[in-house]
Formats: sequence, structure tokens, C-alpha cells
Amino acid sequence: MEQPLSEPEPLKVLIEALRRLPGVGVRSARRMAYHLMQHDLAGADMLSRALRDAVGNLRHCSMCNGFSDQDVCAICVNPKRDPSLLCVVETPADQAVIEAGHGYRGLYYILMGRLAPLEGIGPRELQFERLIKRARDGVVKEVILATNFTAEGETTAHYLAESLRQEGIAVTRIARGVPSGSELEYVDAGTVAWALMERRQT
Amino acid sequence: MEQPLSEPEPLKVLIEALRRLPGVGVRSARRMAYHLMQHDLAGADMLSRALRDAVGNLRHCSMCNGFSDQDVCAICVNPKRDPSLLCVVETPADQAVIEAGHGYRGLYYILMGRLAPLEGIGPRELQFERLIKRARDGVVKEVILATNFTAEGETTAHYLAESLRQEGIAVTRIARGVPSGSELEYVDAGTVAWALMERRQT
Repeated sequence: MEQPLSEPEPLKVLIEALRRLPGVGVRSARRMAYHLMQHDLAGADMLSRALRDAVGNLRHCSMCNGFSDQDVCAICVNPKRDPSLLCVVETPADQAVIEAGHGYRGLYYILMGRLAPLEGIGPRELQFERLIKRARDGVVKEVILATNFTAEGETTAHYLAESLRQEGIAVTRIARGVPSGSELEYVDAGTVAWALMERRQT
Repeated sequence: MEQPLSEPEPLKVLIEALRRLPGVGVRSARRMAYHLMQHDLAGADMLSRALRDAVGNLRHCSMCNGFSDQDVCAICVNPKRDPSLLCVVETPADQAVIEAGHGYRGLYYILMGRLAPLEGIGPRELQFERLIKRARDGVVKEVILATNFTAEGETTAHYLAESLRQEGIAVTRIARGVPSGSELEYVDAGTVAWALMERRQT
């Protein structure tokens, strides 16, 4: 239920703009606008500048497609990383989780999405040819597919595996199984079934 | 669990700024930042401008204390409104609900908060003396207290009623009762009890 309030124009425009944020409806947007204008003018100013700065200075790393303020991002230029491993993830958030594990020393390619035919997101929209070109640089020895184990993530992994193998590139998929530290009793049956099926020799 | 990702500086700053919005944590802030930078650069730009414009042009109406881009807001200058009635609400959102009812033709005073001693919000922080001065303009005949029926809203109403009566100003409180259109069976017992206690002749 929208309230037809005679709000002053700048407030109306601000509420409209806040609504474009994911997960923000009219009510939250109004609450955010009131909060900023009543209690945090400094925060509003800071956010305005941060947005302008990000729009002006952020671009996609020419190697990994992740966000960067340079042509090539900090991870891709790091000489300590192993350039023969290329890990493909859906989003920068996924990359962040892998980095937080401190176990992977290779490079990344960030798809910035996953195949979603119903939303009109196909191989062209995700620029798969750019990834394949990246993987064929002669240095990459193995592409690790680390898309999510959702229907869309799986489809993306299958499609990419096909395309990369056709180019003669070695492809692997991260393991699916029982989460580390968890008890079988509390893990869903599907996950346990997969863990059994994909068991490995120790 | 925060991810120590090597995010480019402009993205890091943007995420920090988004976190100042009410109800937004690290994860939501990151999701918002990624969304804007990946899918809605125009939205980011629009939000940046809207914030700058609101910070620069919004002020408090000198009569009702609500947000306005003029010295006196559109409602307070409207000659069709009845200046003998002054309705006191906590927030502009509350005012919006009353306006949406199309039944009230008087003026408003917006507290921009409610008494909350635990948060250090007292009569001075809410500038009660400004409201009292406003109510003593010689034109106002009745102050209607329309703060919420919460503990804090009730405290605010009681305190204001005392102060205004001391000044010889007529004070009323909006009715508490069973919501219009609802069935008794589905209304909480406390509300029904109040509705009985505050019954009126028809």
C-alpha cells in the first residue's frame, strides 16, 4: 500500500533511487531516506561520493573479469600466484569465500553470473568466448569449475566443461560432499547420497 | 563471517557507505554494490545525484518540522487547511498514513522521533519547546496527539499532554480501538479490552 504523500521533490527522487537497490521496496527506501536525512547527513554525503567514485573508477579486470580499479587486478598481477590454475566462479562473493580459505594459489575467472535461459542469460551474455580465449593462453594447464551446486550453476559447469574440452583444455569440478565439520545426521540426504557416490580412495 | 577479500578500494568504500543504511549488513551491502556495478550503473549514478541533491536542498519546514525543500512546506502554506487543528506525529511516515485517509484537514507537527530515555532522546533532543511555541501561535485551538500506541509513543503523548495543558492549550489523543474492517475474533485481546474501556456513545 503506497502512501500518496506530498513529499518534497528531492525526497521523492531519493526514495525512487533507493528502490533500485536489490531487496529494497518502497517502505525500506522511505525508511532509509528518512534515516539519512534525519540522522546521518554525513553518511548520505559519503554514499553519494562512494557511488560516484565507484561508477567512475571501477572496471572489469582484463584477465579475470572481476572488479578492479586497474586494468589488471591485484590477484592477477601477483607473481606468487600459480598461473597454470584457473578457477571459474560465478561472482566476486564466491571468489571471496575461496580466498578466505587460504588454500588456493592459482588465478580466477569471474563469470559475473550463470546460465539462466529463462532470464535470457546465455553463453553470449556471459562472454564465454572470452573465458575460453583466456584459458587458451598457453600457460593455463587446468580449469577448475567452481560454480554453485544449484541447477543453474550445474548447467553452467556442464556447458563450460564441454566447450573447454573441445579446445583440449583439462577441466575439473570442485568436490561435492558433506561439509567439513558437520555430522552426517544433520546433513540433507541428497548431499550424503552425492558424497557416497563421489567417494574417493584415501 | 566477513570475507577478507582483496577488493579494489572504490568497491570497499562503496560497501562501507552502503552499510550505514538502516537494516543493511555487510552481506547485503556487498550484494547491493555488486548489483549496481554489474547491472545498474545508471541506478548508481542516479542514487549518487539524488543523495547529493537531498543533502543540499532538503531542510525542515519552519512550521511543522517535516522535510521540505522550501522554508515552509506545501501542507503548511495550503490555505485550504484548517490552522486551528495541529496534529502531532512521530514521523513523516505517520503523517503520510493520515494524509492517505483524506479525512484530516488540519495542520501537522512532526516530532521526528519519540521520547526514548534509554537512547538519550529527551524533550530537549525532540525540541518540545519548539512545538509548544508553535501551538501557542494564537490560531491553534486544539492539539491532537497522534504518536504511536507503543510504550515510547504513549510516554511521549503523556509528557506532551502535560506540557501543553500547562500552557492552557486544549489537547486530545487519537482513539485506540478495533481496526476498521476487522473482526473481533482476529484482533488481539489487549486491543479489544481497550476498545471496551474507551467505548463511546453512538
